[in-house]
Amino acid sequence: MPRFTRVEHLTPDDVAQLRDTYGGLADSVRDLVDATIRTEVDAEAVASARAQIDAATALLRSRQVDGAFGVQITSHGDRMPWGNPVIGVRNPIAPPLVIERDDSGAVRTDFHLGAAYEGPPGHVHGGVVAMVLDHVLGEVAANDPESPRFTGTISVRYRRATPLGPLRAEGSVSRIDGIKAYATGHIADADGVTAEAEGVFILPRWARG
Amino acid sequence: MPRFTRVEHLTPDDVAQLRDTYGGLADSVRDLVDATIRTEVDAEAVASARAQIDAATALLRSRQVDGAFGVQITSHGDRMPWGNPVIGVRNPIAPPLVIERDDSGAVRTDFHLGAAYEGPPGHVHGGVVAMVLDHVLGEVAANDPESPRFTGTISVRYRRATPLGPLRAEGSVSRIDGIKAYATGHIADADGVTAEAEGVFILPRWARG
Repeated sequence: MPRFTRVEHLTPDDVAQLRDTYGGLADSVRDLVDATIRTEVDAEAVASARAQIDAATALLRSRQVDGAFGVQITSHGDRMPWGNPVIGVRNPIAPPLVIERDDSGAVRTDFHLGAAYEGPPGHVHGGVVAMVLDHVLGEVAANDPESPRFTGTISVRYRRATPLGPLRAEGSVSRIDGIKAYATGHIADADGVTAEAEGVFILPRWARG
Repeated sequence: MPRFTRVEHLTPDDVAQLRDTYGGLADSVRDLVDATIRTEVDAEAVASARAQIDAATALLRSRQVDGAFGVQITSHGDRMPWGNPVIGVRNPIAPPLVIERDDSGAVRTDFHLGAAYEGPPGHVHGGVVAMVLDHVLGEVAANDPESPRFTGTISVRYRRATPLGPLRAEGSVSRIDGIKAYATGHIADADGVTAEAEGVFILPRWARG
């Protein structure tokens, strides 16, 4: 079953430096992802770009972890879910969302979705809307990083198509009942809510005392 | 509202060539995305890789479409949803899924999810599971590329964590009622179903005759 990785000997300063180095790399790759979708250069230029990309990949792979990144937690309590496809600062697939939590435990996040997240022309893929809402609801349902609740069920209702561009998502827990937490949330553009979700989140067996 | 783009003067051979060129580029970027998450090279090597990546991005951006890719349809009927984050051959975020449809209209797809899709350590992010299921159910609900049905609601039930690795998703329409189509589906690993979904898909107002 999923386990988190404890990393020793990393100070908060070390973590900040790692975030700068590898987060900056991921930023460059996000920009490349957007360019890859939108480019109209000819086959010769594409071949030239590919050669540079493949060289960069080979250099990065010269030393790498086995398998996926996992979730690392330092002895100082810093949590590094950096490979996560929604919030991971090292994952170019992630926008990445920056989650803010208020005193009540409710969360919100302001973010921007561009060409890489397009389903219907000019609009966000419905599956991406579901992915963001699943993550936001999961964040509000998990209070303790070592006792996370995982999604049991989630329902998403799409009121209208969500346009690409600046967006906000919000979520809060409506009720906790033993190993289950009930959460609701929505995603909105400047004109209001485009989709809403509710979910039941469950503490996994391996994390129950 | 979302409109599809008709492109003229592209033969099926042209489309195949474009797919090779730009799909191959996206393959290289997918490999780079994985390396970006997993690399352990030092800051100096990262800076060197970033310089190559940024140079490739600048070259690709020297000629590009305004805004997102959209969905292009040729006068021969070839459909190119190449920017799509689930099936788009030009989108490095997409695995990409290759959807197979049988005579009954049911669909299935075999695919592999690696480090870029990780939520709980070693397992697929629940939001990615929802994204895949949303797309698969949408594919079965849409028979005509010019009259697509968009998701009204979708519910996903997670039976257990979905491991990273080889996976399959399947979907079929259970009922059509006017502008609404009801679809069900699931995602499975070698040991069976990990999550199941049902959805209601609606023909958008702009596409109703």
